[in-house]
Amino acid sequence: MTPVRSLPDSRRYAVLGTGALGGYYGARLQQSGQEVHFLLHSDYDYVRQQGLRIDSCRGDFRLAQVNAYRHPEDMPRCDVVIVALKALQNSLLPQLLPPVLADAGVVVLLQNGLGGEALIAQIVGPERVIGGLCFISSNKIGPGHIRHLDYGAILLGEYGPQYQPQGISVRLNQIAEDFTAADIPSELTEDLLQARWQKLVWNIPFNGLSVIFAATTDEMIVDPDARLLVDLLMGDVQRGAAACGVGISDAVLEDMIHKTEKMASYSTSMKLDYERKRPLEIEAIFGNPLRAAEGAGAQVTQIRMLYHQLRMLDRRNRGDAL
Amino acid sequence: MTPVRSLPDSRRYAVLGTGALGGYYGARLQQSGQEVHFLLHSDYDYVRQQGLRIDSCRGDFRLAQVNAYRHPEDMPRCDVVIVALKALQNSLLPQLLPPVLADAGVVVLLQNGLGGEALIAQIVGPERVIGGLCFISSNKIGPGHIRHLDYGAILLGEYGPQYQPQGISVRLNQIAEDFTAADIPSELTEDLLQARWQKLVWNIPFNGLSVIFAATTDEMIVDPDARLLVDLLMGDVQRGAAACGVGISDAVLEDMIHKTEKMASYSTSMKLDYERKRPLEIEAIFGNPLRAAEGAGAQVTQIRMLYHQLRMLDRRNRGDAL
Repeated sequence: MTPVRSLPDSRRYAVLGTGALGGYYGARLQQSGQEVHFLLHSDYDYVRQQGLRIDSCRGDFRLAQVNAYRHPEDMPRCDVVIVALKALQNSLLPQLLPPVLADAGVVVLLQNGLGGEALIAQIVGPERVIGGLCFISSNKIGPGHIRHLDYGAILLGEYGPQYQPQGISVRLNQIAEDFTAADIPSELTEDLLQARWQKLVWNIPFNGLSVIFAATTDEMIVDPDARLLVDLLMGDVQRGAAACGVGISDAVLEDMIHKTEKMASYSTSMKLDYERKRPLEIEAIFGNPLRAAEGAGAQVTQIRMLYHQLRMLDRRNRGDAL
Repeated sequence: MTPVRSLPDSRRYAVLGTGALGGYYGARLQQSGQEVHFLLHSDYDYVRQQGLRIDSCRGDFRLAQVNAYRHPEDMPRCDVVIVALKALQNSLLPQLLPPVLADAGVVVLLQNGLGGEALIAQIVGPERVIGGLCFISSNKIGPGHIRHLDYGAILLGEYGPQYQPQGISVRLNQIAEDFTAADIPSELTEDLLQARWQKLVWNIPFNGLSVIFAATTDEMIVDPDARLLVDLLMGDVQRGAAACGVGISDAVLEDMIHKTEKMASYSTSMKLDYERKRPLEIEAIFGNPLRAAEGAGAQVTQIRMLYHQLRMLDRRNRGDAL
């Protein structure tokens, strides 16, 4: 099959997972005039009747009516299928994606961590996968009700087998155009793997330690011991990335520290999940990078320790029987 | 000054720190007929009037009257001064020890971790220090009220400069005799440093992780992730000890795991301190071994990470300002 790297002039969007990310971005797209179809689970009845409500630092708005579905079989085929589920729900994708993805369509995965695109590639083929990294602070605070606190940009990159760099496709630009028109600042990257590892430089220390310490970013950044652990973990990510062929400069690490110092007090998504006794995205954010780094021969002792600590804490937090 | 390695035929005992350890062992010594003098702080008034009460798995008993003191200057000079303070209170020892230690007397330090004897040697001279390791499960549950749950043995060894092995002295045997007569099983070691590192093989993983996980020993030993961390940390201690010239065989590690598997559910002293928002003995149990290991060129990454995690947690737990 020849790779299809452009989309129709008019794009129909699907959003699978209408939570903090999918609810916000999907609502922005619909608000800007795009046709959007939302797959919902627990909020289905509420959203079908009440629509979506967005409290945003960039302006509140409501969508009184949205295309809401409970089953992917009921949805029309879409050109761009945005997957905004938690990585923990990725095992549902073999059932969810095929009915809703148009033949020449593409899946855009908005998820943290590593390895999600490879999983989707197994379902729909590697030429139909785009990875997206979200730089946003948002939460779902009620049924169909999203609070957007800060930021909002998306970084998009084509996925290729083994995360080989793919260049900038026509369809990447098309999607970025739609996003930009929907007030979603978008950037494009030729190297999705680089982008994913670079985001892990922040996510691994701050998400992980925020659970261990029950602390916000500002509490960690000023504490000398937590700060030292952040540095050690960032060093591990840098070393793991390098073993996987991804160079991340010291300047990138320093810049992230600097930006975090200037950020307002922030509870990571993992800390919020932990407090709500929800399962944590440990494998996507810690397990897969750990295995990739160790498989490439890197010693990432601190990531390994944090990974096993989080698994134990997560299991206890949810009262899992062994 | 010539080392004095034997004690008078009849020994007078002092106990500094009448808590879970000092209260139990001191009471046992008095019960067996020894003359014992107890230094107390917060429990002074209560114990002076009510004495000591021991609920012990080896038989409950009360001592209606004990020699209780608030100030070391009021105590008689003693041949054996048992220090059973928390390591965190060691900064008090330059004031506490000189008034109470007889000229030919000896200090017996009952404390976990590394480095306490060296500190005491600076105060009283290296030839007047014995280290003691307690294998006991006991808690103070009220003023002058100790609960002894299990075990109770003490391992004693002479301290020498730089923890050089010292052999078995006459006075070691004398003290062990008194302890044995007081129903305190005692063993002697020629190599105090070996004994201290070997105890750290257990204390570092189980004390440290019990705080991180808020878990008892049995919860950790059956959880696959916690158990893996225990193994990694034990390996670090073994490596750190080896760098310091102390060999600890794999069989020792396996034996500790095996014994812990068979132990009843147990909350470590560090977990109990954390729950009560008391300061943790982090420097004695983690900081000093870490610095010793790293100073000798060993990589003990997992101990280092746990050390900094505990410092942050301890600081937050007690609401310390930075």
